[in-house]
Amino acid sequence: MVATSNNVLALGVCDYPEHVPASEWKNHAEQQKTLGLQYVRLAEFSWAKIEPSDGIYDWQWLDDAIATYVAQGLKIVMCTPTATPPAWLIQKYPEILAVDAQGQTMKFGSRRHYDHASDIYRQECKRITTLMAQRYGQHADVIGWQTDNELGHEGTAVSYGGASAERFPKWLETRYETLEALNEAWGCAFWSQDYSQWQQICPPNLTAVRQPNPSQALDYQRFCSDMIEEFQQVQIDVLRALSPNRFLTHNFVIFAQEFDLYKVAKNLDFVAWDSYPIGMLEFFATWESEQTKSEFARTGHPDLVSFNHDLYRGIKGGKDFWIMEQQCGHANWAQYNPLPAKGAVQLWTAQAWAHGASSVTYFRWRASHMAQEIMHSGLLQQDGRADRGYQEVKDFDTSQFVLEKVNARVALLHDYNSLWAYNLQPHNKDLNYWHQFMMFYSALRELGVDVDIIHPEQLADKEYALVVAPALTVVTPEIASYLTQCAKNCPIIFGPRTAFRNDSGRVADKGQFQLIEDLVGIKLANFDSLRPTLSQSVEQTETSTEFSAKLWCESYELTGANATHTYLNGPMAGVAAVTNKGNVSVIGALSGSLIKSILKAALGEVGIETFTLPKGMRLSRRGDITLVLNFNLHDVEWEGTTYPGVSFSTLN
Amino acid sequence: MVATSNNVLALGVCDYPEHVPASEWKNHAEQQKTLGLQYVRLAEFSWAKIEPSDGIYDWQWLDDAIATYVAQGLKIVMCTPTATPPAWLIQKYPEILAVDAQGQTMKFGSRRHYDHASDIYRQECKRITTLMAQRYGQHADVIGWQTDNELGHEGTAVSYGGASAERFPKWLETRYETLEALNEAWGCAFWSQDYSQWQQICPPNLTAVRQPNPSQALDYQRFCSDMIEEFQQVQIDVLRALSPNRFLTHNFVIFAQEFDLYKVAKNLDFVAWDSYPIGMLEFFATWESEQTKSEFARTGHPDLVSFNHDLYRGIKGGKDFWIMEQQCGHANWAQYNPLPAKGAVQLWTAQAWAHGASSVTYFRWRASHMAQEIMHSGLLQQDGRADRGYQEVKDFDTSQFVLEKVNARVALLHDYNSLWAYNLQPHNKDLNYWHQFMMFYSALRELGVDVDIIHPEQLADKEYALVVAPALTVVTPEIASYLTQCAKNCPIIFGPRTAFRNDSGRVADKGQFQLIEDLVGIKLANFDSLRPTLSQSVEQTETSTEFSAKLWCESYELTGANATHTYLNGPMAGVAAVTNKGNVSVIGALSGSLIKSILKAALGEVGIETFTLPKGMRLSRRGDITLVLNFNLHDVEWEGTTYPGVSFSTLN
Amino acid sequence: MVATSNNVLALGVCDYPEHVPASEWKNHAEQQKTLGLQYVRLAEFSWAKIEPSDGIYDWQWLDDAIATYVAQGLKIVMCTPTATPPAWLIQKYPEILAVDAQGQTMKFGSRRHYDHASDIYRQECKRITTLMAQRYGQHADVIGWQTDNELGHEGTAVSYGGASAERFPKWLETRYETLEALNEAWGCAFWSQDYSQWQQICPPNLTAVRQPNPSQALDYQRFCSDMIEEFQQVQIDVLRALSPNRFLTHNFVIFAQEFDLYKVAKNLDFVAWDSYPIGMLEFFATWESEQTKSEFARTGHPDLVSFNHDLYRGIKGGKDFWIMEQQCGHANWAQYNPLPAKGAVQLWTAQAWAHGASSVTYFRWRASHMAQEIMHSGLLQQDGRADRGYQEVKDFDTSQFVLEKVNARVALLHDYNSLWAYNLQPHNKDLNYWHQFMMFYSALRELGVDVDIIHPEQLADKEYALVVAPALTVVTPEIASYLTQCAKNCPIIFGPRTAFRNDSGRVADKGQFQLIEDLVGIKLANFDSLRPTLSQSVEQTETSTEFSAKLWCESYELTGANATHTYLNGPMAGVAAVTNKGNVSVIGALSGSLIKSILKAALGEVGIETFTLPKGMRLSRRGDITLVLNFNLHDVEWEGTTYPGVSFSTLN
Repeated sequence: MVATSNNVLALGVCDYPEHVPASEWKNHAEQQKTLGLQYVRLAEFSWAKIEPSDGIYDWQWLDDAIATYVAQGLKIVMCTPTATPPAWLIQKYPEILAVDAQGQTMKFGSRRHYDHASDIYRQECKRITTLMAQRYGQHADVIGWQTDNELGHEGTAVSYGGASAERFPKWLETRYETLEALNEAWGCAFWSQDYSQWQQICPPNLTAVRQPNPSQALDYQRFCSDMIEEFQQVQIDVLRALSPNRFLTHNFVIFAQEFDLYKVAKNLDFVAWDSYPIGMLEFFATWESEQTKSEFARTGHPDLVSFNHDLYRGIKGGKDFWIMEQQCGHANWAQYNPLPAKGAVQLWTAQAWAHGASSVTYFRWRASHMAQEIMHSGLLQQDGRADRGYQEVKDFDTSQFVLEKVNARVALLHDYNSLWAYNLQPHNKDLNYWHQFMMFYSALRELGVDVDIIHPEQLADKEYALVVAPALTVVTPEIASYLTQCAKNCPIIFGPRTAFRNDSGRVADKGQFQLIEDLVGIKLANFDSLRPTLSQSVEQTETSTEFSAKLWCESYELTGANATHTYLNGPMAGVAAVTNKGNVSVIGALSGSLIKSILKAALGEVGIETFTLPKGMRLSRRGDITLVLNFNLHDVEWEGTTYPGVSFSTLN
Repeated sequence: MVATSNNVLALGVCDYPEHVPASEWKNHAEQQKTLGLQYVRLAEFSWAKIEPSDGIYDWQWLDDAIATYVAQGLKIVMCTPTATPPAWLIQKYPEILAVDAQGQTMKFGSRRHYDHASDIYRQECKRITTLMAQRYGQHADVIGWQTDNELGHEGTAVSYGGASAERFPKWLETRYETLEALNEAWGCAFWSQDYSQWQQICPPNLTAVRQPNPSQALDYQRFCSDMIEEFQQVQIDVLRALSPNRFLTHNFVIFAQEFDLYKVAKNLDFVAWDSYPIGMLEFFATWESEQTKSEFARTGHPDLVSFNHDLYRGIKGGKDFWIMEQQCGHANWAQYNPLPAKGAVQLWTAQAWAHGASSVTYFRWRASHMAQEIMHSGLLQQDGRADRGYQEVKDFDTSQFVLEKVNARVALLHDYNSLWAYNLQPHNKDLNYWHQFMMFYSALRELGVDVDIIHPEQLADKEYALVVAPALTVVTPEIASYLTQCAKNCPIIFGPRTAFRNDSGRVADKGQFQLIEDLVGIKLANFDSLRPTLSQSVEQTETSTEFSAKLWCESYELTGANATHTYLNGPMAGVAAVTNKGNVSVIGALSGSLIKSILKAALGEVGIETFTLPKGMRLSRRGDITLVLNFNLHDVEWEGTTYPGVSFSTLN
Repeated sequence: MVATSNNVLALGVCDYPEHVPASEWKNHAEQQKTLGLQYVRLAEFSWAKIEPSDGIYDWQWLDDAIATYVAQGLKIVMCTPTATPPAWLIQKYPEILAVDAQGQTMKFGSRRHYDHASDIYRQECKRITTLMAQRYGQHADVIGWQTDNELGHEGTAVSYGGASAERFPKWLETRYETLEALNEAWGCAFWSQDYSQWQQICPPNLTAVRQPNPSQALDYQRFCSDMIEEFQQVQIDVLRALSPNRFLTHNFVIFAQEFDLYKVAKNLDFVAWDSYPIGMLEFFATWESEQTKSEFARTGHPDLVSFNHDLYRGIKGGKDFWIMEQQCGHANWAQYNPLPAKGAVQLWTAQAWAHGASSVTYFRWRASHMAQEIMHSGLLQQDGRADRGYQEVKDFDTSQFVLEKVNARVALLHDYNSLWAYNLQPHNKDLNYWHQFMMFYSALRELGVDVDIIHPEQLADKEYALVVAPALTVVTPEIASYLTQCAKNCPIIFGPRTAFRNDSGRVADKGQFQLIEDLVGIKLANFDSLRPTLSQSVEQTETSTEFSAKLWCESYELTGANATHTYLNGPMAGVAAVTNKGNVSVIGALSGSLIKSILKAALGEVGIETFTLPKGMRLSRRGDITLVLNFNLHDVEWEGTTYPGVSFSTLN
């Protein structure tokens, strides 16, 4: 079902023919073909062009555009246009608008201004999707569909009023059946929060003293995730019926965290994501230092990009994914939006392939003359000349990028319940789930190791040489069971906050580790949230090597495990910082060098080769090929070879 | 009426039996007894457990819990549960919800979500308090009551709509009688603000250009303070009638500033406050440097803690107070929430006693498994094991801590009208009333001197050797009269901004000093608000000693006083910075070293011994005992003795 | 029509007799006369004093006040009191209140709380203006009028609801006639924004993901500007009819940017502005460094002040302007509000004259005892003593300050459409239109050159030796034509982003330079938004001189021009950074030293003398006099002469 026919990486582009005069279309399509592109993504945000007013349709322009691309041999990826309900639809049904955390109803004039829980809007989406699918669903050159656009992005996953507020109590009733169960799950005994009627329950915004119940907030996040899942399913059902044998996918976003991707992606054929490496570092990676942000301002940081690749490859259990929007010049939405370095577009494309992409779609064909994205670049400039990325794409030879498997032997465990619960009560304003997760991910990548990022339940599907759970703070009986089973044959390394909460976000009566206490052989002694000016020393007992931890330290009481590292100073001096019991280790202290040293030793034990890579240089393997990626602007000498700045090469 | 029978410091704990299974209660009570605790505080936030729905009551659990504690010989401090009106009550009377400064009505799901001015809610509070008092008011082991919880905390003192907005004009009519008087008091001639009908007057939020009239805002603060006073009085009246011979108190908060504590505490038997030394430094003391926040991250700063002790001791004229919640492990609400140093719980407890506490109640017994305080510690861990504080409490011997008087000979004058007026127009974004106040307080404490913090009208009750008024910017005729009387026998030292405003927050026609101009013998020359990168040099005329002032400098024209210090540079070069006339000095420049040098000299003159204390080390006296408190993590050598880090000892 | 009779600078003062007892008036007026003041500005914000309740008038106090001033020979500048509709009027017509960007209706209690689009409020303003004009319009000593006060200041130019929201679609219909035209102009094809009915269109606030369409936002800014223009015109019409032969002016504000001053000032006789040099640096010039803010904390920065002078002189084509409010002591509205240095008031007054002021009005006569401006100073202290500024005004000899022409030979081009469009999509969070503009302005002022700031269409009115367009990003056909015509005889230097957008804020199909591409002889290669930690090197090809650029760099493809400077490193290495074609140069890199070097060379070629001025020292010429202004606190040696700190002197 994928676009490419010859089992190598395919390239495509996002195009918006409705943004330029029809007279330009043929010329554009010819250039796309010349460039080696195989498909165009079309019709995203096009609702108002298709249905300019209620029930009045104009398909001609889209028919013509498709015909023009197809005439050049290009394939078509169609989008449902539901991320942008038109003005007339908002005028007709203002109740579909989302409500923000301050209680204000959103206004028309941007995108994603709807409440996913709205039945009216779901019906409207079903209607327009049906019409599109009827018209194009069996078109010979339409190879697949993208639903909506960047679901939940930019704070749009959650609506705090309207349809969502109305539906939340019903969703809770389905989940808990009785208010007793809900009151217990949320710990409503605290602060007199017990509910005596379902309709008393609100979204968790605008509470006095701005502290909502975290279990309520956790369930609201789940509810909103389910609403997104249901919202998309309406379209999936239509498309499956009316556009058989075409792929269905969705373009997810950087460091997505507003909904459960495993669930929302379940009925898609594969996932796609939108990769903007520069803004990823500048805007999203709030925990990165100014120095890192400066050094990699023109390439992005290799680990931030590959983390997303590995995450999305794992969402569907290792299946190839697409890059549905690949930055190919400057973007427009970060605080600063520098030009990419020369070579960066090729570097990103090769990296995407190495981590499992089967297709890379550049965003966008021609820079917009108008509206919110005037300052965003494309492969063509606004006046139609080739921009910098154009030449890089032209010079990029895809023939070596065969679509073999990515064979990672190390797995990082990830779960959205843990992400939400962690971030709802971080206990340290500089910490969050992704930050902690990235410390483990980067340690592995600095060692030159390929990793899968998977949900714990995927442990049942594949055997790994090493499993790492950086921040698995919510542990259900099912997860506990997967972990226990896994540990029988494979070392597992846990990070701080492991198994601190149950499924409702409460701490179990047994306290931290609860269901896996036997597995880890420890109890929590204390956790310690450090202000950024403080650090704690940790010593490896055997070698007396010292490490410096920041932000978060946990200490453990041993109930079967050994302490491999202890705190040297501070209130937890002399207490275990890292423990081991058989296959299972727990790292309690956030220290990059400590984490790396433990992972390196563990990798050695399971026979996975590690490397000492220069800063900004990474190894990524796919099939038999190992790529050496240099994200530095300058040349780097490594193991006798000089790697040019901003380059990829095959390791001999 | 106090819990202790043997005239030494009593210890107790806050417990929430409704948060754990009843099967745990006996075990908990036994451990509490073993630990030497004398009482538990109960039923705070318990409304929904007592009255799960409208008019349906469940007293059994509380009866049983009380019986369990009492069986172990523990006494009971009961709380009215009014800080958390239940969901059904909000559903029935949504109009009791408070409205925030942005005009949004608060939602249920946290605490303190009500408007103190609401008659409906006052009636509901009267009802539930009556029922509780009828049931437990004469219980032999119920020794006293806490009203509500942390009144006005976390921004909940003020509601900008609903009942408060409706009642404000009536309150103003009572205060001013005529609109002419109000228009004059508020200076409504400015910007055409004159009112011609009472109901035209609104709360001072959401004004255009976000600048409300400061006199209106000052009166709104007074109004809200009065509403809190009235709100609490409803409960006091019930409890006095139905629970005779039990104490009534309230747990006030750190650096409370939202209402007039002297008025709100008037009808209580004694005051209590909730002491969290670590968050106090990290979260509340916004003016402290990063270095100070780092050095005292695990103990809190001694002066911040003792300031609150001295303030609360003074609220009821030197009467012993309680610590109703004493941090005994990490808290959860600051930006960072580190573990306390080993010994800190004992240090805080001893310090509280030394400054006049008769009882210290640890918060909380067992860490919560649920809801907003999951990340907060207790004496027990969530799984029931003893946490770090438990051992410290166990090892703490209260027998030496006899409840003698604190005999301070120096008074610092404090008044909420000055606090509000100062903070409404700080004229320098880094300055506020408490910041300025603490510069004087810390100077005295660094000199090893004990201080009372009192309202000026308390000058009539006790004679002091030295009186200091750090920031008394609002001076009424009554206050002027107290000051004038006091100065006849006792030196007074004033800080900047003294007597700048009258009772309505206006400047008198006579300008600064107005009613006490003869007393101080100066007129304002100029005030100067310095950006943080600027400083001004001040020279002591006699000795040519130089000091460096920051943030705020005032200069004075002499009309009877002498200049003891003058500015050396800047626009006020050569003009008086510090003046003296007989018993009265005025310090115009904010410089810690300058303030300390003047206070030291003044103390010498009145025969109060001063000390040169190392950083982080303090002396506190009660009765015949002088405690040496070392808040440093490291040992300190002083006067030939080594004081261990984080420790208290008796000075020989 | 101007106050002065002897063709030298006149001085006056803003007074509010309604703020003090009538018994003080005579004394005040006598002192004003003694001080050499010629007029007082009266009645600003006085509506509630004139009409205390609906239809009830009190003119007596104002009649008396005027008589008192006139008795001392002072002239009167009257104000319409419309910036502060009284409480009774708001009570009667709450619908005139403005709505903020968060959707909240403003409350009474401050100033400028009205919506300029409200017909009801316009009628009320017409009514009160008519009554005032009938009473005072032909008074012999009333020399002129100020309309309202500081139109649009402090975020009040824009209301996001009420009358503005209702009128916006109608305004759009007038502008575009058809929705097709609007949809095309705004690029509504983007994100499905096409409108099918006028009433679907809203103000551009509260959009989802907080990104409104920039063309919609640009038009909303224009609409609000037009509403202000119409709002003021109502008053102008009344005053022209009823107060003939009096001047009409308005007091505009520092770095005004919320409306089109050229249009709003069109029917005024001259413009006035309110000069607060210290807050201008501390509060408005967000781009200035901490070091600059410290060094000039007590004088303001010379270029920020003179920029406003030159801007306002240009608004009416070089006509003398007034300072309607001149800071004469500390103000109260910046983050920090230090005292001005000794001499600063004289320095500012002399500087204002040198840049074209015919009159300087000090704000305010006596410091307010009350309300929002208690912390603001006046010429008199609150208690009536002379403050520091009083003495400076007294010692200031105006006789040398003859009202000759300012003869600038260099013009800087400015346009509000460019300002708005630039700031709506800055693409770099540290950049804005004024920041970029000031880099060019300061370069010229550091070279000792006088400049006019004019709208491009004013090029038709006067010939210049050199024209500089720092940030002319919106270029209409009319502007293109003026530029093309101008370049025939005069060198033009453009800054970055030139001609990037058309009148609707879109990029033309031809891309950047569009209508002036032949003139500049280049196409855009790339623009590059630099984070503050990055810089790019630029080399002058001929001399190999290197410059360092920050924040923004553009590179150019040559289509007729030569490259005079190229980038040395980064993604644009080797590409043109500065180009020249005949009379026209384009500077693409933001580097103060680069800009200065190019301007210096260009000035040399057209025979304008340049100077090497020490930091903080400036030259300003009017008629035959050249003032040397030293804004440093310290003495400066220059060309053999020592200039005292904070001083002005005549260059020999």
